[in-house]
Amino acid sequence: MAGRYRHSAAAKAGASPGTLVHIGEQKLERVFLTVIDYDADAVTPHQDINMAAALTCCDGPRNTWLNVDGIHDTAVIARIGEHFKIHPLTQEDILHTAQRPKLESFDHYLYIVLPMLRYLPEEARVISEQVSLILTDRVLISFQESTGDVFTPVRERLQKNRGRIRGSGCDYLAYALVDAVVDHYFVILEQIGTRIDELEEQTIDNPKPEILHRLHALKREVIGLRKRIWPLREVIAALARQDSTLIHRETAIFFRDVHDHTIQVMDTIESYRDLLAGVLELHLSTISNRMSEVMKTLTIIATIFIPLTFIAGVYGMNFRVMPELEWRWGYGFALGIMGLTALGLLVYFKKKGWF
Amino acid sequence: MAGRYRHSAAAKAGASPGTLVHIGEQKLERVFLTVIDYDADAVTPHQDINMAAALTCCDGPRNTWLNVDGIHDTAVIARIGEHFKIHPLTQEDILHTAQRPKLESFDHYLYIVLPMLRYLPEEARVISEQVSLILTDRVLISFQESTGDVFTPVRERLQKNRGRIRGSGCDYLAYALVDAVVDHYFVILEQIGTRIDELEEQTIDNPKPEILHRLHALKREVIGLRKRIWPLREVIAALARQDSTLIHRETAIFFRDVHDHTIQVMDTIESYRDLLAGVLELHLSTISNRMSEVMKTLTIIATIFIPLTFIAGVYGMNFRVMPELEWRWGYGFALGIMGLTALGLLVYFKKKGWF
Amino acid sequence: MAGRYRHSAAAKAGASPGTLVHIGEQKLERVFLTVIDYDADAVTPHQDINMAAALTCCDGPRNTWLNVDGIHDTAVIARIGEHFKIHPLTQEDILHTAQRPKLESFDHYLYIVLPMLRYLPEEARVISEQVSLILTDRVLISFQESTGDVFTPVRERLQKNRGRIRGSGCDYLAYALVDAVVDHYFVILEQIGTRIDELEEQTIDNPKPEILHRLHALKREVIGLRKRIWPLREVIAALARQDSTLIHRETAIFFRDVHDHTIQVMDTIESYRDLLAGVLELHLSTISNRMSEVMKTLTIIATIFIPLTFIAGVYGMNFRVMPELEWRWGYGFALGIMGLTALGLLVYFKKKGWF
Amino acid sequence: MAGRYRHSAAAKAGASPGTLVHIGEQKLERVFLTVIDYDADAVTPHQDINMAAALTCCDGPRNTWLNVDGIHDTAVIARIGEHFKIHPLTQEDILHTAQRPKLESFDHYLYIVLPMLRYLPEEARVISEQVSLILTDRVLISFQESTGDVFTPVRERLQKNRGRIRGSGCDYLAYALVDAVVDHYFVILEQIGTRIDELEEQTIDNPKPEILHRLHALKREVIGLRKRIWPLREVIAALARQDSTLIHRETAIFFRDVHDHTIQVMDTIESYRDLLAGVLELHLSTISNRMSEVMKTLTIIATIFIPLTFIAGVYGMNFRVMPELEWRWGYGFALGIMGLTALGLLVYFKKKGWF
Amino acid sequence: MAGRYRHSAAAKAGASPGTLVHIGEQKLERVFLTVIDYDADAVTPHQDINMAAALTCCDGPRNTWLNVDGIHDTAVIARIGEHFKIHPLTQEDILHTAQRPKLESFDHYLYIVLPMLRYLPEEARVISEQVSLILTDRVLISFQESTGDVFTPVRERLQKNRGRIRGSGCDYLAYALVDAVVDHYFVILEQIGTRIDELEEQTIDNPKPEILHRLHALKREVIGLRKRIWPLREVIAALARQDSTLIHRETAIFFRDVHDHTIQVMDTIESYRDLLAGVLELHLSTISNRMSEVMKTLTIIATIFIPLTFIAGVYGMNFRVMPELEWRWGYGFALGIMGLTALGLLVYFKKKGWF
Repeated sequence: MAGRYRHSAAAKAGASPGTLVHIGEQKLERVFLTVIDYDADAVTPHQDINMAAALTCCDGPRNTWLNVDGIHDTAVIARIGEHFKIHPLTQEDILHTAQRPKLESFDHYLYIVLPMLRYLPEEARVISEQVSLILTDRVLISFQESTGDVFTPVRERLQKNRGRIRGSGCDYLAYALVDAVVDHYFVILEQIGTRIDELEEQTIDNPKPEILHRLHALKREVIGLRKRIWPLREVIAALARQDSTLIHRETAIFFRDVHDHTIQVMDTIESYRDLLAGVLELHLSTISNRMSEVMKTLTIIATIFIPLTFIAGVYGMNFRVMPELEWRWGYGFALGIMGLTALGLLVYFKKKGWF
Repeated sequence: MAGRYRHSAAAKAGASPGTLVHIGEQKLERVFLTVIDYDADAVTPHQDINMAAALTCCDGPRNTWLNVDGIHDTAVIARIGEHFKIHPLTQEDILHTAQRPKLESFDHYLYIVLPMLRYLPEEARVISEQVSLILTDRVLISFQESTGDVFTPVRERLQKNRGRIRGSGCDYLAYALVDAVVDHYFVILEQIGTRIDELEEQTIDNPKPEILHRLHALKREVIGLRKRIWPLREVIAALARQDSTLIHRETAIFFRDVHDHTIQVMDTIESYRDLLAGVLELHLSTISNRMSEVMKTLTIIATIFIPLTFIAGVYGMNFRVMPELEWRWGYGFALGIMGLTALGLLVYFKKKGWF
Repeated sequence: MAGRYRHSAAAKAGASPGTLVHIGEQKLERVFLTVIDYDADAVTPHQDINMAAALTCCDGPRNTWLNVDGIHDTAVIARIGEHFKIHPLTQEDILHTAQRPKLESFDHYLYIVLPMLRYLPEEARVISEQVSLILTDRVLISFQESTGDVFTPVRERLQKNRGRIRGSGCDYLAYALVDAVVDHYFVILEQIGTRIDELEEQTIDNPKPEILHRLHALKREVIGLRKRIWPLREVIAALARQDSTLIHRETAIFFRDVHDHTIQVMDTIESYRDLLAGVLELHLSTISNRMSEVMKTLTIIATIFIPLTFIAGVYGMNFRVMPELEWRWGYGFALGIMGLTALGLLVYFKKKGWF
Repeated sequence: MAGRYRHSAAAKAGASPGTLVHIGEQKLERVFLTVIDYDADAVTPHQDINMAAALTCCDGPRNTWLNVDGIHDTAVIARIGEHFKIHPLTQEDILHTAQRPKLESFDHYLYIVLPMLRYLPEEARVISEQVSLILTDRVLISFQESTGDVFTPVRERLQKNRGRIRGSGCDYLAYALVDAVVDHYFVILEQIGTRIDELEEQTIDNPKPEILHRLHALKREVIGLRKRIWPLREVIAALARQDSTLIHRETAIFFRDVHDHTIQVMDTIESYRDLLAGVLELHLSTISNRMSEVMKTLTIIATIFIPLTFIAGVYGMNFRVMPELEWRWGYGFALGIMGLTALGLLVYFKKKGWF
Repeated sequence: MAGRYRHSAAAKAGASPGTLVHIGEQKLERVFLTVIDYDADAVTPHQDINMAAALTCCDGPRNTWLNVDGIHDTAVIARIGEHFKIHPLTQEDILHTAQRPKLESFDHYLYIVLPMLRYLPEEARVISEQVSLILTDRVLISFQESTGDVFTPVRERLQKNRGRIRGSGCDYLAYALVDAVVDHYFVILEQIGTRIDELEEQTIDNPKPEILHRLHALKREVIGLRKRIWPLREVIAALARQDSTLIHRETAIFFRDVHDHTIQVMDTIESYRDLLAGVLELHLSTISNRMSEVMKTLTIIATIFIPLTFIAGVYGMNFRVMPELEWRWGYGFALGIMGLTALGLLVYFKKKGWF
């Protein structure tokens, strides 16, 4: 539905900016806070702790990753916003779940928002969730709409001290999260690629009309994906250019790598559009060709029998004087004429290459 | 109608620039002036006051919002223009209701023009009106074609001192008005999104030919919307870049936010175009598929009966000597041949996958 | 015809640049010179004066507008070129009537060339003429292919001292002429808009095949218009940027206004292209839908009668033993079967939603 | 054929750059050298002289134009290359006849390559040849694939001392040659324009299927032309920008003029693409409309007769008891029913607007 | 298959960057190292040597080309990476075989990755392989997925000291390899060009439906090719701009030449897309035209016989009183009417231009 791309604006049009109103579906009953405190030597995870404890952790000397699951509770956002001196517009943006991916640079923090797509194999569907990241000097705060994310491998790397993640700053952690999100796009793209291949095969083997609806739905999905991911390109390019002092030079090189992946995602989406257009074209042409073949065959049959029926009609006339009717072999003669007519037409059609 | 996009130029072609001629429909009988005088401590609204009183308010020490409903009276515009030293071309632009959105920066004022769209739910239609804003250091003047606007929430925020509006300058008030206008676009877009969804559903369920006309009308509406909103992007980008000293640094951050919304509006319009094209394509293909199915079925019926009729014709011939006619079971034999022929054709068509 | 867009190049390919050869149709028998001498206090028009007198006027202390109607006489151009030291390439360009709009800046003069379109209501057609302007410090020279132009209001403003035209320099006069030309484009666009609306209405009411040809012709016209006006955008942008010292700061503001109009013209042309494509699509779909409806109805009629004819054929067979034929109510029985068959088919088609 | 756009790469893939291998068709038996030695006072042409003499001329104090007809002899190119210290890559490029138009600037020479198109009226076809120009301080060397070119008017201007060609340097001569080549494109475009007009007329008058193939061929030609000429734009823009010191300021103004022509060529090609697409669309729609009209008429005829035939069939049944058959006016009654049925159907179809 | 464009991301999503995991198909059993040690005087090739020996060669004073066939063994990459201090992300990129072409510039080395396409004539198919180049001051390392490449002519030039390759640095060797890869694209393009020509010919001669599938497959191939080669443009432009100090000025000129070739490749691909679209259009129109011709002919035959059959039906009616039946020449009269009807219809259809 087109509604998927909409901003539920009626609810808030004209309200004061920075008014904290959650726009979107509430996906959790309450908000869960998770804190991971780490430095090169140790890592301390805190599951589901309360706000006061979480903020205390953040003020400690170590790097801290504060993850917030659930963004429907404006009080939570306001409390965090106040603690970290986050601009009211940023707080508002965290609450709105129909943001375009964007990067906003403030004096003491960076705000990154991007869509996290997850493929649930058991349900064979894609879940989309908005992830907001606030990066300050020593703290990274991530806001998710719901529990469950694509960050498990990042948590494991922190725990098991794999790679450079523990030894680097929060900017590297931000990179790790963004990278995990972008890497997951490829999983989604693989699903779509497989479905395009299937539809193409079906189109060649057995072009049923319902393929049309499935192609349409897939095309719609690709349009939506493109619309959501497209602005990410600039966001990550800005991170790779190291526009903000919060991103260190070594981390910028890693963002350059994510940037390459984003461009690859966009390229793949573009080529999927081309491929889908091609499959649709192929489908319509194949359907139309098949239909034409059917019509042609049927028309040839009809056309052959119409003159024969005419001949039969002629000898069914009741004129008193019709010499042929009296002939000994009149009947055979009539059948013969019919046979010859049919044969003549068949030869003619064959010669014309009509079947 | 294409006429909607036209500039009624014949009326004025070649006239001296700055000649004040109202171009557009006169929507009100007379001009209504409303003044809201405010500072951080108090707000004083003046409904429908006369010109002299209004200009006196504007010259006072407090921030003033002068709203002009009705732009057909050139004398009013000329009087205001003279008082605020507004360039003749700007005065002319205020009077012409087919302006492209634009921002013009003069030494002592900014001129912003943008289209205000309102959805009237009771009449189920969209009203478009041109809004011109003149921003000087202490005064904001807004010109509307008619009474009724999307600014009610802004007036309430001023009255009830919500947010930072009372404590900020006129540039923030300008932001609040522009933001209200842009936020309302989302309401319009929601309407269009809903209609696209409806048409898509109808196309899948029951693709009647009249959907074609409705799709065409909707596409036309989207083209018109795009044409009108497109240039707004640059206008608001310029405001966010803080090109003029009349826009303060803190307000520029808010305009950056409106800029994001404008881009989101354009993205949505673009994806609506894609969606509409997709629905149209689906509609045409579905119609064509259905028609083909009908034709195929009918042709199959006709094709089966034509050979049968031929056989009946043969045994309706009046040859004197036709052995079959004399047979005891001749009639049954003929019916049998017919039955077998019909069956043979059905089997053949079935095998070919034609039904 | 495509020829409309052609440069009659064969005539001159390879000739020395600056060779004065008139390329285009000769529209007048002789060249008419008109001079308007003016300053803030007075204006002196000279109709159809000779070359020597005209050049004397130009050398006077007042601002002078020298208008040349007819550009087929190379001697006239050469004489003016020599007097004002105009580059041979510019002289050549004045003579060629298939120029792209362009602005060329030389040390002591500006050369502007643009297409002047006029709608002749009595003949219901559009006339296109090339206008060249040479702007020096105190003189503006305009070259037209023929008498009759869109400059009458400008002449009146000069005569009646309306607006700032008499008090400003020749650059303002140049602006006034360019503005008059661009304003006239809107008149042409209105004609085209009206025709698109008419064709759309006819398409919805009664989609005759000849509409196709009219749509095609209109599309061709819009393509031609776009091609001719498109480069004007850059020309006027350059004037508004005040690239040359011959354009004063105050006049540049006015050119900025013309620039807005030009962009509006281009936007309108673009949306006309979209609208025309939409109407064409609608037309083809409507025609195709109508045709399909006709075919379907006819095929349904044929399909209902074919089985009935078959039944009649069966009872027209001449078998000696056909029990039904001997029945008392055989005829009624046969008619009954036919009626039931027809009814059955009608119910079936109805149920399938085929009519 | 697509082959026309190919680079015969297999022959040379991976070879050392600067390896002199002629790629293309050999069009002449041997190489012809022509030298024109000139200054403001005199011009000395040397037809078909040998290499040593040619190089001696080039070393003289006067401006020299060395024209080489035939580029298959790598020894000739190598000799010239050595004499003028031409980079091996340039030598290689001269020999490859599938170059994109390009400009390469070296310390002591400019290398320009562009396609020369000639229309041979007697054979009604277009010949394409690659022209390479090497411009040094006092010498211009032109390489052509074959004898015969579009430079005859330039030679005449040199001979007869027309225009400024004899008094200017070799850069002006280079301009004159490039201008001659570009001017000739218009001749080719005129041919194409005429053919588009013809095909459009035929499409409106008598849309035969073979027009489709001619439109396709023309479109292919326009695509090829566009591909070959497109890069020329940048080449000539660079010359007009006077990027190299080998181009004098006065000559750069002339190249600016050629640049305008090139843009006009591209504009015309673009509008030809639009026109061709329009004619194709018109053709397909017209064909489809005509076909539909035919089918409709035929189907109407068939549909009217089918019920009549059914009635005839009814009264051809052999039931013993069929009261109508015994009526005095039974036959007339039957004919009457048939007539009324036919009339009824005609009126119905007419009312539906089907013919 | 769309899968061809996929990044096998599921395997690695979220892993630590720089984690060496081979992504792609393992094409060789083990890794083969080849070293060519050279300077202006001598060249020493080492086939299939071990790692330690290879690295010793690389540390020698002469230029060294280390070629690695097989990239599935992460230990090999890690060893080389450690020796040459290659960034972990670069090592990771070498292992992933679905990279976009890119150039990455580090302090002491350049990383270039590009796709190598080879046409295997014996198998009539194209093989695609990823080639990574690491260019340091004295060493060039090339990584290939498998043995067999397009570099044989480069090896020969090294061996036989042809051209400047032995006397130049490793940057020139890098140029030679990139040039060999790009030159080979033309071989692939020639194959595609030939296939387009064949399909076009078949479309004109005998437009069978299976051409549709072949056109679709070819279009898909061209889309894939375009996607893979497109980013190469920027890569080689950056090399030609000599952004890195590792590329010398003289070599940059050679990269400029490769850049021209790359643009030519892209131009050719673009024109192939246009050509393919044209052939597809032609194919569909031709098929549709042919089908229409068939239908029209068949319908004309049917339409002529239907009225004749009706007449026969009339005289087959069994009315007691039917005067014509008793006429002496009644039968002839009926046949005459039929003949005239047929003739009349034929003349009518002919006059209408229906056949």
